[in-house]
Amino acid sequence: MPLAPEQRGDQSVAPSLVRYELLHVDAGTGARRGRLHTPHGTIETPIFMPVGTAGSVKALAPDDLRTLEAQIILGNTYHLMLRPGEQLIGELGGLHRFISWDRPMLTDSGGFQVYSLAEMRKITEDGATFQSHLDSAKHVLSPERSIDIQETLGADVIMAFDECPPSLSERSYLEPSLARTTRWLSRCVTSWSRLRSSLFGIVQGGLFEDLRKRHAEEICAVDLPGYALGGFAVGEAPEQMHAGVGFSAPLLPKDKPRYLMGVGTPLDLVTCVGAGVDMFDCVMPTRNARNGYLFTSQGKLVIKHARYAKDPRPLDPACSCYTCRSFSRAYLRHLFIAGELVAMRLNTLHNVHFYLQLMAEARRAIEADQYADFVKAFRARPTVVSE
Amino acid sequence: MPLAPEQRGDQSVAPSLVRYELLHVDAGTGARRGRLHTPHGTIETPIFMPVGTAGSVKALAPDDLRTLEAQIILGNTYHLMLRPGEQLIGELGGLHRFISWDRPMLTDSGGFQVYSLAEMRKITEDGATFQSHLDSAKHVLSPERSIDIQETLGADVIMAFDECPPSLSERSYLEPSLARTTRWLSRCVTSWSRLRSSLFGIVQGGLFEDLRKRHAEEICAVDLPGYALGGFAVGEAPEQMHAGVGFSAPLLPKDKPRYLMGVGTPLDLVTCVGAGVDMFDCVMPTRNARNGYLFTSQGKLVIKHARYAKDPRPLDPACSCYTCRSFSRAYLRHLFIAGELVAMRLNTLHNVHFYLQLMAEARRAIEADQYADFVKAFRARPTVVSE
Repeated sequence: MPLAPEQRGDQSVAPSLVRYELLHVDAGTGARRGRLHTPHGTIETPIFMPVGTAGSVKALAPDDLRTLEAQIILGNTYHLMLRPGEQLIGELGGLHRFISWDRPMLTDSGGFQVYSLAEMRKITEDGATFQSHLDSAKHVLSPERSIDIQETLGADVIMAFDECPPSLSERSYLEPSLARTTRWLSRCVTSWSRLRSSLFGIVQGGLFEDLRKRHAEEICAVDLPGYALGGFAVGEAPEQMHAGVGFSAPLLPKDKPRYLMGVGTPLDLVTCVGAGVDMFDCVMPTRNARNGYLFTSQGKLVIKHARYAKDPRPLDPACSCYTCRSFSRAYLRHLFIAGELVAMRLNTLHNVHFYLQLMAEARRAIEADQYADFVKAFRARPTVVSE
Repeated sequence: MPLAPEQRGDQSVAPSLVRYELLHVDAGTGARRGRLHTPHGTIETPIFMPVGTAGSVKALAPDDLRTLEAQIILGNTYHLMLRPGEQLIGELGGLHRFISWDRPMLTDSGGFQVYSLAEMRKITEDGATFQSHLDSAKHVLSPERSIDIQETLGADVIMAFDECPPSLSERSYLEPSLARTTRWLSRCVTSWSRLRSSLFGIVQGGLFEDLRKRHAEEICAVDLPGYALGGFAVGEAPEQMHAGVGFSAPLLPKDKPRYLMGVGTPLDLVTCVGAGVDMFDCVMPTRNARNGYLFTSQGKLVIKHARYAKDPRPLDPACSCYTCRSFSRAYLRHLFIAGELVAMRLNTLHNVHFYLQLMAEARRAIEADQYADFVKAFRARPTVVSE
């Protein structure tokens, strides 16, 4: 029997919606310095949220995330509903307790993974039917089911169930999809009953400015604790994405947090903060780490390259993470080549630290009204480590 | 060009041999409470040494090992000579600096892995020729080469190059092998030149008491900083091994540390401490952890079992490790089933903690002259978690 909404998730925190506090707008750009108050604590924005797909930020434990000063992490509804199942997590006290994380958490709606991971998916007015990528079992996700799962997991921020069309979709595909996402939002709002989990709406519209504008008006007509931009970084060129976010972010209310879903590279983050985005998530720092692609202040570094075999220097001499304080490129290359498990953790610690510190630097630049200079300096950095 | 002996390994510590201090012998057994003073610090014995095969205790980083209060770890000469090569490690300042570990370290001679891992091995009076298990390249290990590699790595304790015959070998195989190991020890001693790396001799002899006695006399006639028992836990039954160690350990000098190589299960450790062994190493806690086999005060626990799917309890309610303080069996099972990398670290943290705490308990029991009771209580524990 499903748990009643008031019994779901973490019961140890006061029931209240998240609240955004705009502290300062950069004098020369649209970059915003703010705070998101949640039942599990306050998040300084702009912020990057590491992705904890199946209840774990891959290769890291909560002690690592605390050391990295991660303020909020993500969970994926699609993965968790399939394994171990939201019912089990609910019975064990919710996702916070299950994974032993007492800071803020956000879950997505599962919609995006249905489109990108599942087999045999079919979308109707009711919702999406699909087969699990794990065992081909048939499942249904609808606005009601997605909200129910997310309230059972009990994250501080939950996301509306939407369709995420490819960003290069034609206007003729997008228009009915957007209208359905709007109708689905009404059903999400009707289903939503848990005050400790704040529902964010999602604006779609591909790369069409007029469609983004119309859809933002529809979605933001519903008074919600926050709003997201979906459908970016799903196939378009970075410049197209930056332009699209550039005209879309300002369409969202100034007094609410703005979340750009699934983005992106360090350059994407720096650019889109300038457009007024407050929150980001992406698997890039964690996935790249596991493949030996490391972000540094001097550009990307591919640790398996032979030129690092005897290199006594840290990955990034400018970095203060545990990996850079403790180990040489030579040792990290050895661990990676030898397939040692700890390589995954050390690389991931570094990349997540890089992303989180980049956002901390962005926050300081906004506070000092120097965000344009910060972007300029960032763009002047080399893209690849040169020696 | 090889580095001169005085340039090898960690140069930051004073050159001195390790020194064993016998603090107390248990009143009712042969169990010894002692201290091993090394250039990188003092080790409280009896002690278990986690195995850092290729320059990493698998799935753990040095910060984990410090949290676990590991006092000494092992490196494997065979693995490190093949990848990344001792020359590279030597040029980067030795193994301590390479892996960022500033506490005591021990390397084995490479001999055992030549017999257990390498392809096409051939043993002559000169040494062993073999093909790497990595790329089938041809290599030679001899007493001189093994000592040279180990001095380049620069561990605090280095091991003599011996032949490790199967424990059930016939007397006719063992006798010439033992004589050769004795001749090889002379060559090791002649090659040995680094004061910061203390050479331990190895006594073989299979399960024959007279052969162990004769070989112990030969090996211990060479005045060395410590002695080891080799050739146990290589195929014989646990009871045979316990009996063999029971008559072999007392053959070693009382004023030197006694190291039982490659042993073993928790019961093996508890039993052999009672015979007067001071040092152990084994891949069992780390390897079993990666396979989901966990040691607890209530016996072994196989985390993938379905009965743990909704179990909110820690792995071992009596355990104080990070894993047990933070996570439920249900979550650990989920991580293991989902193939999450962090499962390897959390399981390994727990198993290594179990081994190290078991030795800490053994030390306290010896200090209190209650070691026989400790063994009795340990043997009364269940072998498998019953619920």
